[in-house]
Amino acid sequence: MSTTLFKLQREHLVHLQSAYATLLADHQLDSLAIYSGHASDHFADDHAASFQTYGHFMHWVGLADVQHSWLMIQPEKRPQLYLYAPADFWHLPTRLPEEPWVAEFDIHLCSDKVAPSLAGKAAIIGDIERLPASTLQSLNAECQPATIVHALDELRLLKTPYEIACLREANRLAIAGHQAAQAAFIGASGELDIQLAYLAASRQRESSVPYQNIIGLNQHAGVLHYQHYDLKAPKQRYSLLVDAGRRFRGYCADITRAYAGPDAPAAFGELVAAMHGLKDELVKGVAPGVSFVALHEQMHHHLAEILIAHELFQGTVEQAVAEGVTRAFCPHGLGHSLGLQVHDVAGLRHPDGTPAPAPENHPALRLTRTLRPGMVVTIEPGLYFIDMLLEPLRNSSLPINWPLIDQLSPCGGIRIEDNVAVTESGFDNLTP
Amino acid sequence: MSTTLFKLQREHLVHLQSAYATLLADHQLDSLAIYSGHASDHFADDHAASFQTYGHFMHWVGLADVQHSWLMIQPEKRPQLYLYAPADFWHLPTRLPEEPWVAEFDIHLCSDKVAPSLAGKAAIIGDIERLPASTLQSLNAECQPATIVHALDELRLLKTPYEIACLREANRLAIAGHQAAQAAFIGASGELDIQLAYLAASRQRESSVPYQNIIGLNQHAGVLHYQHYDLKAPKQRYSLLVDAGRRFRGYCADITRAYAGPDAPAAFGELVAAMHGLKDELVKGVAPGVSFVALHEQMHHHLAEILIAHELFQGTVEQAVAEGVTRAFCPHGLGHSLGLQVHDVAGLRHPDGTPAPAPENHPALRLTRTLRPGMVVTIEPGLYFIDMLLEPLRNSSLPINWPLIDQLSPCGGIRIEDNVAVTESGFDNLTP
Repeated sequence: MSTTLFKLQREHLVHLQSAYATLLADHQLDSLAIYSGHASDHFADDHAASFQTYGHFMHWVGLADVQHSWLMIQPEKRPQLYLYAPADFWHLPTRLPEEPWVAEFDIHLCSDKVAPSLAGKAAIIGDIERLPASTLQSLNAECQPATIVHALDELRLLKTPYEIACLREANRLAIAGHQAAQAAFIGASGELDIQLAYLAASRQRESSVPYQNIIGLNQHAGVLHYQHYDLKAPKQRYSLLVDAGRRFRGYCADITRAYAGPDAPAAFGELVAAMHGLKDELVKGVAPGVSFVALHEQMHHHLAEILIAHELFQGTVEQAVAEGVTRAFCPHGLGHSLGLQVHDVAGLRHPDGTPAPAPENHPALRLTRTLRPGMVVTIEPGLYFIDMLLEPLRNSSLPINWPLIDQLSPCGGIRIEDNVAVTESGFDNLTP
Repeated sequence: MSTTLFKLQREHLVHLQSAYATLLADHQLDSLAIYSGHASDHFADDHAASFQTYGHFMHWVGLADVQHSWLMIQPEKRPQLYLYAPADFWHLPTRLPEEPWVAEFDIHLCSDKVAPSLAGKAAIIGDIERLPASTLQSLNAECQPATIVHALDELRLLKTPYEIACLREANRLAIAGHQAAQAAFIGASGELDIQLAYLAASRQRESSVPYQNIIGLNQHAGVLHYQHYDLKAPKQRYSLLVDAGRRFRGYCADITRAYAGPDAPAAFGELVAAMHGLKDELVKGVAPGVSFVALHEQMHHHLAEILIAHELFQGTVEQAVAEGVTRAFCPHGLGHSLGLQVHDVAGLRHPDGTPAPAPENHPALRLTRTLRPGMVVTIEPGLYFIDMLLEPLRNSSLPINWPLIDQLSPCGGIRIEDNVAVTESGFDNLTP
């Protein structure tokens, strides 16, 4: 597999080199410098907050923790990497991986935090606002030109075969974690220990995960961005929701699974099975030319069918969708673009860079594009029992089965999420 | 223990209230607002970096993850806490602990990010630069007055009995992690798995630790701020260094232990034992009126004795210190102030707020004060085999036993660190 990945990485770099050359020519630029960014210290403290290398930098150099470094791209020249590598016995020096990009770049190890000399008419992008003013002046370049950033976002929307291979490998590693999390749940572990089991099996530390893993037991499964890990296991085990990822060469897996526990009512287990079916159905809908907004609306249509089939709602599909019943059970979007960032760039833009915001009645949708080959998206239908959203419906005359909802409420909710690449003819599910 | 801690917390708050009243009177202020701070998103992304509540805010409210909130202190009035608590089904709302401070404060739950109305002549402190300009203008207060910040730093330097009890509890919890780390090392685990064993036993997630734990096997034990966790266990097990902490109500434990592995030369195990002895000796030197710089110099004196006793250096103690031999083996300081931040405030200042920098030949020392009752410090002598520092000595004629150093070099280094409170009559070692 390594040999294939090496070959794919070389082709990925050729593709980037060519796309950047066109972009620079279009903008009459001789060079583009990309700044990696750097971590900030906590306020009035000497410890740094967590950090993530700028996505357009990672597009070339798949390391998510490179700081104080610069990449200079010029047409028909080798990429110049100015890698900050101080003579410092306090830290282990940055280790370069054994990958083709290392041989394809001119790598300058810099003991100081210096900016490169830019050739000709130049532009710079990245988190440069916190750089010393003198550094920016010395660069003498256009800062953060919006048309360039948009074009690069657009370039990242469509993944190369190398990027898809990386996303597939990230998925493979993450699934090992999900299996361990499920086993820990069966073993009656609490949230913290389920998280640690996930990390051990997916071979990563918490600060390397692409987003904070959501590990929610019982009602916490219904808190969409649940941000804690309880230290103690609850007495009753109704449910577990695990939304957890892994990076591979910068690329993010983002997978969710939900499980019924021994104390859940039978109806909850049946709903989990139904949501797996819904996820599979929606994955099959992924194909070039498909509007993601339409696919999102299809999710609501199917959600209504599930609510009716499982006797949560005793009206029609049309009524459930039109009256906002399905939105109360699933307030988030069907999915988002996935890549070097979990919520990857360019999801809410038209190809020309103008904004394509989410529809008014689906404000949380993060992807409004028409699918094209090379896009990678998450497909993550959900069904939750969230008091704050259900409460307004209680005062309506809608035919909702409140006793059943009250019975299911301790289970929190369900989300099933896979990562799917759009191919020429349809889809390729990267989640094993 | 809880009842005692409740009583101590109440006394702590009375002490703060009184000290702040004096400070406000001295500065002719009617109120002081303390901003908690808030997390930043990663550049061009929608995921936030890690965050730590501002220390002076935590001094009253012992929660390290409160954001977008304000605390207003006025003489002879109850503290006013404006706690950001939006009606938000995406996150679990901030949970208030069952502690006395909750009853002693007026708590205003705010659904929006608002700043409080300040009474009379007011000042504000905290990470306010990233707040909207309109918010700062509406506050109409003096921002970040240096004399107030210095006085509050000074107040935090001397811990109340409540704070010392919290630091002791943090130590108790951290030691359980250290025992598990040692067991994992005996079980031949790699760095990642030792770290996960530490977290499981000390009951915390990585993003809650007060500083990134250092878990270094073999030569990594000699990288002072080693920042990775290798995924695979090495074949040879020479040594392990674990520098790892835990927060309790915001207060930080900071403990280091080093272990000789089955593949280490006998001389390394003997050096580990000697460094434990040196740590104990230096802890006994902690007492009111002692200059921490002098104690640091005493460490170098004893380090020289150890180098000589273990045949690493074949000259005199005076020569080892004067020629910088001990500094090459231990480039960091003896310790630092410890509290709500790991490297706590006011370590390098005189009591009047003027700077008291580290001595020229000990630039890494973080505490230059004369010890006073209530101060809590780390005592952390170290002995390392760092090529970058030893190399210059190789070209000297100093009587250094290079063959023995080359034999010990794969062991990386040793650091033994306890947390010690200064009492009226001497010291109280908080590390069990």
